[in-house]
Amino acid sequence: MAPSHDDKAVSEVRDGSAAKRPISNILFVIAMQTEASPLVEKFQLTEQPDSVFPEGVSWVRYSGKYNDLNIDIVCPGKDKTLGVDCVGTVSAALLTYASIQALRPDLIINAGTAGGFKAKGASIGDVFLVSDVAFHDRRIPIPVFDLYGVGAREMYSTPNLAKELSLKVCKLSTGDSLDMTPEDEASILANNATVKDMEGAAVAYVADLFKVPAILLKAVTDLIDGEKPTAEEFLQNLASVTSALDQTTTQVVDFISGKCCADL
Amino acid sequence: MAPSHDDKAVSEVRDGSAAKRPISNILFVIAMQTEASPLVEKFQLTEQPDSVFPEGVSWVRYSGKYNDLNIDIVCPGKDKTLGVDCVGTVSAALLTYASIQALRPDLIINAGTAGGFKAKGASIGDVFLVSDVAFHDRRIPIPVFDLYGVGAREMYSTPNLAKELSLKVCKLSTGDSLDMTPEDEASILANNATVKDMEGAAVAYVADLFKVPAILLKAVTDLIDGEKPTAEEFLQNLASVTSALDQTTTQVVDFISGKCCADL
Repeated sequence: MAPSHDDKAVSEVRDGSAAKRPISNILFVIAMQTEASPLVEKFQLTEQPDSVFPEGVSWVRYSGKYNDLNIDIVCPGKDKTLGVDCVGTVSAALLTYASIQALRPDLIINAGTAGGFKAKGASIGDVFLVSDVAFHDRRIPIPVFDLYGVGAREMYSTPNLAKELSLKVCKLSTGDSLDMTPEDEASILANNATVKDMEGAAVAYVADLFKVPAILLKAVTDLIDGEKPTAEEFLQNLASVTSALDQTTTQVVDFISGKCCADL
Repeated sequence: MAPSHDDKAVSEVRDGSAAKRPISNILFVIAMQTEASPLVEKFQLTEQPDSVFPEGVSWVRYSGKYNDLNIDIVCPGKDKTLGVDCVGTVSAALLTYASIQALRPDLIINAGTAGGFKAKGASIGDVFLVSDVAFHDRRIPIPVFDLYGVGAREMYSTPNLAKELSLKVCKLSTGDSLDMTPEDEASILANNATVKDMEGAAVAYVADLFKVPAILLKAVTDLIDGEKPTAEEFLQNLASVTSALDQTTTQVVDFISGKCCADL
């Protein structure tokens, strides 16, 4: 029997040939509508009325062609009862999983806002390329389970991308809270993270299950070790920082265009 | 066009007729192999070599017939790098999602171990039927997002089941850590929970997306407000408490047999 499309995709991932094929399908996983909208406009994508997702979910998909790339942006959408964006690891993991199954991307980009540590050199508006992820709110003090909880993971290496665009590179720590307890802080320090978000490590976990290369771009909306309360600072800077994120993201996509993953 | 199987399932959920049809397919979502094995044996299920799940995941499925019921038990399996059970909300949510899509269960049962509060009346070995779930480690101090983070949810009402089997009923709070910080404790108190686990609210969230009735059974392995360290007490009681859980779970399945969801 001839190999099916899926078998082919899997075997290409296994033998590494996928990494040497020009990137064709990029999947953006973006948690908040405010973060996604400017990119949807920039890449002139349109919302897809016939969902590739099952009935019941709030997930939204925007698609289109930009240069030679097929771009999909998926967002978890609004909680059906409460009307707010479905942020956090569970929604991000589910959406990444379902999108990989339905869209078979060559590359995933998780772009979003994050808190930054000024003690580690972060400033408001900085856009970081993430080298490593880990979780800071999954403490399981049993040997080996402790490592599983932290879930430290190196991201797909993109040295040419980092160099060409002069991107700042740092480690990311992910947790389901916007605020930070002393225990979270200790874990974030142990993770050696400069930025903290609510989705990155979950997206990376699912991408890694299926060996899809993933790039994480995180823009700093608030300084966790600054003087202002996180929630206030986050809301204040969300729009302006999102625009910095969009600029970098566009540069990243322009750089990717025509290349294969191994060239990044 | 004739409605497809899926369309039929969706419309039955919508008009409530599914609730009045005898339950045929039960899906157990169980986080740890130690929790699942005795039930696999009890119901004489066999591991399915042809996975309904995509290549790349560690998820395991056991299937078989027990009385008039088709029973599937799914477990997240072992982390491919670390070899420990993939506990926690992300794995549980992904597995529940994929299993609903592949197996179209009439009813989901999430059975597992939990920590209990003796101040709320819990003792080691107690098996609770969960009336309500919420998360205790998703603090988002922005109006409405705060409620989304807590994600409080009433479980499918099963008054006859609770009465017939004299089950203790309580609220469950879910988080990704085995231990408990002061902030977790405050949230658990606010959630009015008697037991705390690492998966329940995530399973309930996904089941609710697709309107699949779900029953949560939680057996107390350790007293959070007791004197012994949680991890030690958990490991000490895991095997014996799992046996109490299996006994109750079997009674629940025997009660369900021949009934429809509305009769529970």
